[in-house]
Amino acid sequence: MAMEGPSELKGIKYPAKAHSLNVKRHFLSKKKDAINSAFFVSGTSLEFFAYCDETIPLRQNRYFHYLSGINQIPGCYILYTLADQKLTLYLPEIDYDDVMWSGMPISLKEAKEKFDVDVVEYESAIESKLTQLVADRIVIYTTDTENYAKKPFSKLVRAGDKDFFYALDESRLIKDSYEISMMKYANKITANSHVAVMAAQPIEQNETHMHAEFIYHSIRQGSKFQSYDPICCSGPNCGTLHYMKNDDTMVKKCSTLIDAGADWECYASDVTRCFPISGEWTKEHMDIYETVQDMQKQVLDGIKPGVSWDHLHLLAHKVMIKHFLNLGLFINGTEEEIFDSKVSVWFFPHGLGHLIGLDTHDVGGYPNYDDPDIRLRWLRLRRKLLPGMVVTDEPGVYFNDYLLENAYKEPKMAKYIDKDVVRKYMNVGGVRIEDDILVTKNGHENLTVVTSDPEEISKIVKKGIAKGKKGFHVVV
Amino acid sequence: MAMEGPSELKGIKYPAKAHSLNVKRHFLSKKKDAINSAFFVSGTSLEFFAYCDETIPLRQNRYFHYLSGINQIPGCYILYTLADQKLTLYLPEIDYDDVMWSGMPISLKEAKEKFDVDVVEYESAIESKLTQLVADRIVIYTTDTENYAKKPFSKLVRAGDKDFFYALDESRLIKDSYEISMMKYANKITANSHVAVMAAQPIEQNETHMHAEFIYHSIRQGSKFQSYDPICCSGPNCGTLHYMKNDDTMVKKCSTLIDAGADWECYASDVTRCFPISGEWTKEHMDIYETVQDMQKQVLDGIKPGVSWDHLHLLAHKVMIKHFLNLGLFINGTEEEIFDSKVSVWFFPHGLGHLIGLDTHDVGGYPNYDDPDIRLRWLRLRRKLLPGMVVTDEPGVYFNDYLLENAYKEPKMAKYIDKDVVRKYMNVGGVRIEDDILVTKNGHENLTVVTSDPEEISKIVKKGIAKGKKGFHVVV
Repeated sequence: MAMEGPSELKGIKYPAKAHSLNVKRHFLSKKKDAINSAFFVSGTSLEFFAYCDETIPLRQNRYFHYLSGINQIPGCYILYTLADQKLTLYLPEIDYDDVMWSGMPISLKEAKEKFDVDVVEYESAIESKLTQLVADRIVIYTTDTENYAKKPFSKLVRAGDKDFFYALDESRLIKDSYEISMMKYANKITANSHVAVMAAQPIEQNETHMHAEFIYHSIRQGSKFQSYDPICCSGPNCGTLHYMKNDDTMVKKCSTLIDAGADWECYASDVTRCFPISGEWTKEHMDIYETVQDMQKQVLDGIKPGVSWDHLHLLAHKVMIKHFLNLGLFINGTEEEIFDSKVSVWFFPHGLGHLIGLDTHDVGGYPNYDDPDIRLRWLRLRRKLLPGMVVTDEPGVYFNDYLLENAYKEPKMAKYIDKDVVRKYMNVGGVRIEDDILVTKNGHENLTVVTSDPEEISKIVKKGIAKGKKGFHVVV
Repeated sequence: MAMEGPSELKGIKYPAKAHSLNVKRHFLSKKKDAINSAFFVSGTSLEFFAYCDETIPLRQNRYFHYLSGINQIPGCYILYTLADQKLTLYLPEIDYDDVMWSGMPISLKEAKEKFDVDVVEYESAIESKLTQLVADRIVIYTTDTENYAKKPFSKLVRAGDKDFFYALDESRLIKDSYEISMMKYANKITANSHVAVMAAQPIEQNETHMHAEFIYHSIRQGSKFQSYDPICCSGPNCGTLHYMKNDDTMVKKCSTLIDAGADWECYASDVTRCFPISGEWTKEHMDIYETVQDMQKQVLDGIKPGVSWDHLHLLAHKVMIKHFLNLGLFINGTEEEIFDSKVSVWFFPHGLGHLIGLDTHDVGGYPNYDDPDIRLRWLRLRRKLLPGMVVTDEPGVYFNDYLLENAYKEPKMAKYIDKDVVRKYMNVGGVRIEDDILVTKNGHENLTVVTSDPEEISKIVKKGIAKGKKGFHVVV
């Protein structure tokens, strides 16, 4: 069964204790004498939408997950005492009214076997335990008390300490082999789903059909949740960066862009692919595709420990400028002059990529949304690369009226743009190519396993068209 | 395109003003001298999951929707002044930083054309308007200020008034023709999706495959959201009422139960079907299916204005008892004795059905979860039927170890059960059949259009099996 998870992790528990130890080490690097501390973090509780009994889909608190490995069990807590490195999981009490509706919850014994923790108890044991810790002069750090503000033990903890967040974020930043296996598995599901979308053209006449196709294949493979809401666009809609409507006709358009990734047990994948609806690339679509492909490739070649992400982001701008000069989209200046004018930002307005892990936009990137350099303002990763980071390499080029207005109204930028040539590219909308890249000791490894080669993509689309309405299914 | 909505509503606006007038009438029936009042309700805002920039799927506040007809636009408000019956919509100000990512939002002019309101303004106009109303001694009623607690105008409104909630709930209780069209359309999408699941047996080896199939066909037809998270079970899992795991193997099992409904523009459908995995009903599966079908049919025949839902719920218990005596599941008593013992509740523990509309479990039912009669405790509708109500008719019969324990430990109940016969039915798990029924002036109309006839279902499943892996697609 595809939904059993990575085969190499069979029988191996999520490394909750190793993760807790990571956090301890980073924490003590900041608070050197704080060995008499404990970490206490609450998982997500089941909540209802307002004025009804429909539950909000449970998205587990990623900090809690990192310390426990628990996904779809609401209302848990985790406690880690630094001195003895003991990890205790607290499960919610059994609600017998709910058992009739939902069946028996996991037992203490089953939880102890399943998760990498030392002790499992029910929530009712928390108060006396935390009271004892406080009496023993142990300081109990927590992220926040939002989930349990009304419970008496919320008074016993210290919320919002910046060193605790630092320790959590720095730990999550560097992925261990277990986490990399999870992310590869999410990427495998995502790759199959992207190929299925490309191959299903005969029954895709509306963007929502691409959306349906992707979700279908993800769920079939066991990924009930997506890392983020899929972006499925066609034609000029590809120029809207976070297009969410996914409901426009695809008829008489040339281009598509689908940005979608399956989640595997809270680990994200984030992949964007573009393909021609007919299977044949138009000249303009291919011009832009090759530009973005070159941007992505040159960035990829540069990914290794020690390199600054700012540098690679600006490198992508330089590659784009070179292609735009060749295509006649940019005129009247040298590569350097055009780079310095920052005009390229209105064709490539977003950041090159971001950290990815338990969150799609993962913690530890320290963005600066007030950066005076407009090209760097939306860059979500502002530090040097380290082995074990996973980043997305996702340059894009867009032809969007609203973005172009910003360029045209600024004479120092507008003079470099040939508006007549730009007009020829408006129907393409945009191209983004996005892969998830692990930084390794000596370089990098691409976790994304769906092709981005334009000839390969063309073959997949055409093969689907040849098979007709009933031939598109990747049954995994 | 299927996703254009009900053809009979083409060019017709959602009747927001008529809905506001309904609420006004019910409100004034309680507060007779309150013509100098206004209603002010906030729509849902876009919010993030904790510690990340992933947005929580926007589920529009149903009260706001009823008064406005607005679905996927976050951060709106609606104001209705009772004396002049004027309805004003407030849109959020344009966030130009967001336009780059998401495109231009709907304009004031477009909103005025699209929605049934008198005036459209931006949120910045709210404060002076509400201040003026208060100065004019107009009392402004709201449901709550949760979404806008920090905004100055939150001080100008009166939250939580019980007559306001009464008026909203009684208005929503009775569906008008527009709403019925929406619910029929949701049911049409749902019916196609259920048939697709039945016909896809060759590629359904795990419950998650049923889940994927249902979601796929719903999204394809334009229903991006489901009314509720689908329940997809097989074999003994069918005995868990709100089974949510949807991840067990279907291999070597006889029975399935799928409870799933598409949402159409905030209007719910709620449909359950059961089918035999092989296409052939086993004797035990058919015994229970016929029992539930008879329960559902006899209830349906009784649905008309003036009838008490309690009465129909208890009728379903009586029908079940009759069948159980015939099948030898109940012994040692008459129908009356067994009915009085309440033992049937451990085979049919939930309510017969509930109101449905903007919410799956819609407002206005006034359940009593503390009812001393255990059979009525989970009944979500405790009043007489009225024309325009839509209710679900969804009896079920379950064989669930946890439920049976409750019966077996009570000698006054246990004596009526033949444990040996019960054992033969454990593999079936459970059967529930659920349709959405409109109460009409003289009787009822079934809005659900997917067959529940066991022979028809058998044919659909077998036809799918005969077509093989690639033949299962309903392309709408």
